[in-house]
Amino acid sequence: MTNALGTHILAEYYDCDVEVLNNARKIEKHLNDAALEAGATIVSSAFHTFNPHGVSGFVVIAESHLSIHTWPEYGYAAVDIFTCGDTVDPWKAFDFLKESLDCAHYSTIEMKRGQLKVVGQELKYKPDAIASAAR
Amino acid sequence: MTNALGTHILAEYYDCDVEVLNNARKIEKHLNDAALEAGATIVSSAFHTFNPHGVSGFVVIAESHLSIHTWPEYGYAAVDIFTCGDTVDPWKAFDFLKESLDCAHYSTIEMKRGQLKVVGQELKYKPDAIASAAR
Repeated sequence: MTNALGTHILAEYYDCDVEVLNNARKIEKHLNDAALEAGATIVSSAFHTFNPHGVSGFVVIAESHLSIHTWPEYGYAAVDIFTCGDTVDPWKAFDFLKESLDCAHYSTIEMKRGQLKVVGQELKYKPDAIASAAR
Repeated sequence: MTNALGTHILAEYYDCDVEVLNNARKIEKHLNDAALEAGATIVSSAFHTFNPHGVSGFVVIAESHLSIHTWPEYGYAAVDIFTCGDTVDPWKAFDFLKESLDCAHYSTIEMKRGQLKVVGQELKYKPDAIASAAR
């Protein structure tokens, strides 16, 4: 059978709320909340504010990651939502951020990552591996 | 004029060195070195090892980010190299990792992020903004 390890959504958010895009605390909360909305398990996160403006942030999840880079001067945010496993829905994170950033329009690309032909076994996702390790 | 804020390479590395894929210390060194090879300025990084195997990590750079997720059980690594500005070459990071992971074959997609029509001004990249702020 042919299967994929992950689903990666590349989201372009345009005409967003500029105050939100330039507020590292709000961006951090929104990206972490988006991960939880998707059903992901947060492992760690890091956020940075750039001078004179703009925020970059990352949330590592057990199922891969979410990232965001904002350009308040253009009302634009580039977001990546990369998840694996059947228990996480990256589109829920996308919808949550669409509202949180109050964006007027957007575009998305969904890419399957790690498309592998696996014979005689089911693809193992990291969450399963973690669960089996915890047993 | 129409311009883009960033260049994002989505790289699929197959048939990599399994020992490297499962070694968080080596993956961290390779991803940080790849960022420097591209000419990027490293801001922060974080790496995690999953049980029973697999490494996830990211490097936030002033010019956006690099990320990696490895599945040693499949000899596969999913890498993202997202850069902005004219001073950084993401393909140098891609080539560096291709050798570091000793991958037998790979596939890539390059996407332009933040394609904006800017009238009467040049697009400002974060590195420029940082430089102007430092003056």
